Amino acid sequence: MNSSNNNVKPIGVFDSGLGGLSVLKELAQRFPNENFIYLGDTARLPYGSKSVDTIQKYAEQNIEFLLKKEAKVIVVACNSASSAFLTKNKKDYGLPIINVIEPASQSAINTSQTNNIGVLGTRATIQQKAYNRVIGLLAPQYKIHSVACPLFVPFIEEGLIDDPIMNLIIHRYIYPLLKTNIDTLILGCTHYPLIKDYIQKVAGKYIQLIDSAPAVADILQHKMAVKAVTPNIKNNKQNIELFITDINSRFEEVATRFLKPVTYSNITATQL
Amino acid sequence: MNSSNNNVKPIGVFDSGLGGLSVLKELAQRFPNENFIYLGDTARLPYGSKSVDTIQKYAEQNIEFLLKKEAKVIVVACNSASSAFLTKNKKDYGLPIINVIEPASQSAINTSQTNNIGVLGTRATIQQKAYNRVIGLLAPQYKIHSVACPLFVPFIEEGLIDDPIMNLIIHRYIYPLLKTNIDTLILGCTHYPLIKDYIQKVAGKYIQLIDSAPAVADILQHKMAVKAVTPNIKNNKQNIELFITDINSRFEEVATRFLKPVTYSNITATQL
Repeated sequence: MNSSNNNVKPIGVFDSGLGGLSVLKELAQRFPNENFIYLGDTARLPYGSKSVDTIQKYAEQNIEFLLKKEAKVIVVACNSASSAFLTKNKKDYGLPIINVIEPASQSAINTSQTNNIGVLGTRATIQQKAYNRVIGLLAPQYKIHSVACPLFVPFIEEGLIDDPIMNLIIHRYIYPLLKTNIDTLILGCTHYPLIKDYIQKVAGKYIQLIDSAPAVADILQHKMAVKAVTPNIKNNKQNIELFITDINSRFEEVATRFLKPVTYSNITATQL
Repeated sequence: MNSSNNNVKPIGVFDSGLGGLSVLKELAQRFPNENFIYLGDTARLPYGSKSVDTIQKYAEQNIEFLLKKEAKVIVVACNSASSAFLTKNKKDYGLPIINVIEPASQSAINTSQTNNIGVLGTRATIQQKAYNRVIGLLAPQYKIHSVACPLFVPFIEEGLIDDPIMNLIIHRYIYPLLKTNIDTLILGCTHYPLIKDYIQKVAGKYIQLIDSAPAVADILQHKMAVKAVTPNIKNNKQNIELFITDINSRFEEVATRFLKPVTYSNITATQL
């Protein structure tokens, strides 16, 4: 069976788990004529606490899977994998691969007036200093203030979002940043947009939050405009297929929460 | 190179990550003449949020690894894997395989006077109702009160043990149990002994906590007494080898915290 309708080649998106669905949601809304294949590597999540070599190996297997599904472009919708990719990858897969770190970095540079940018991320993303390296290349005069937030993902996956204990965790991570001169704060993990409002409340209204999803959509739009990615002109029904490497009973609930109001066509369990 | 000194066959122990080191520590102290091989599947941890089929597949790969290292007995030092194993496994590996659930269940039955036993565990362990099934077979008159505690492991792995936010999480999980008639509470995850004192404080002194490690050591002692496992009589230097599927920078710190005062001989990264 062909993985997309109308014989349209899909846009491939992958993440360690479900966080990348926040990017898929943005892309599906921005590009209603496109079909999507999403791979969540739930059997091996999370990536954020693992080593760069292991994350890189998993990312390559995910890309191979999406290539077999005839993706015309691949979005690495996971900061830990993007970070490992920027650190390690030299392979040319013969199609555009878009990571989440470069678009978010550019967006933060465009936003900051104080030249001080904050970054929230997993341990892997923060330790690999991917944002420091990218921003350092694009605009070396900017100062970066990073905080590893390893407990955000477990709380979000538990659905503990509007919760007093989550609020304490947000305070603990954000407070050290408030002593700096940042006016721009990158949500450096695709899970974090789900707690954006609560982070904003603690950070205060003078700090602009940067979500990578719209920035990724901008890059993709640009790639279509310059024909690096062939856009699909017409689509009677947008097809969104989710593949996950481990199905557990809470998957549909969490996927629905991430994607809302976008709905997926079907979910399939797969092995890599 | 032989994996053990003196040509002594080692005792194999595995876990999804580092929690099983709390069992290894107990066994290493109880059996000073024995050598140990420990496998932590850190590249795919945690198991507790994954499906029974995936956990079972990972457990089988871990056992194959320990068999190649000539283990004479294998301890499944992970409740999620033990639970999947009790649910699914029918394979005979030709050597004794000890899980953590049966020994802890027996110990709880021996302890409880009210016939009401509490169980704290990961989502996987609680959903599979392994303790209910084992205790139901051994002593059907006992009532089981279970609570899934998915946030304990992330906090413990972060080292946030003596921490006010961790204390709030403990209160949230334990409080519903205090309305029941339990006098015995099983720590149904090998990470939990690290927060035993804090759980005890919230549960109160009339509730007896059951740690699976001493119960597993008792079973192993029994198996040696009846010659189901050949004990080693003399050992000049106990050899404890750790193998992990993903090395990250925090591994040695966390391993040392779990094993103290036991020390390991060496750590090796391996692929399954």
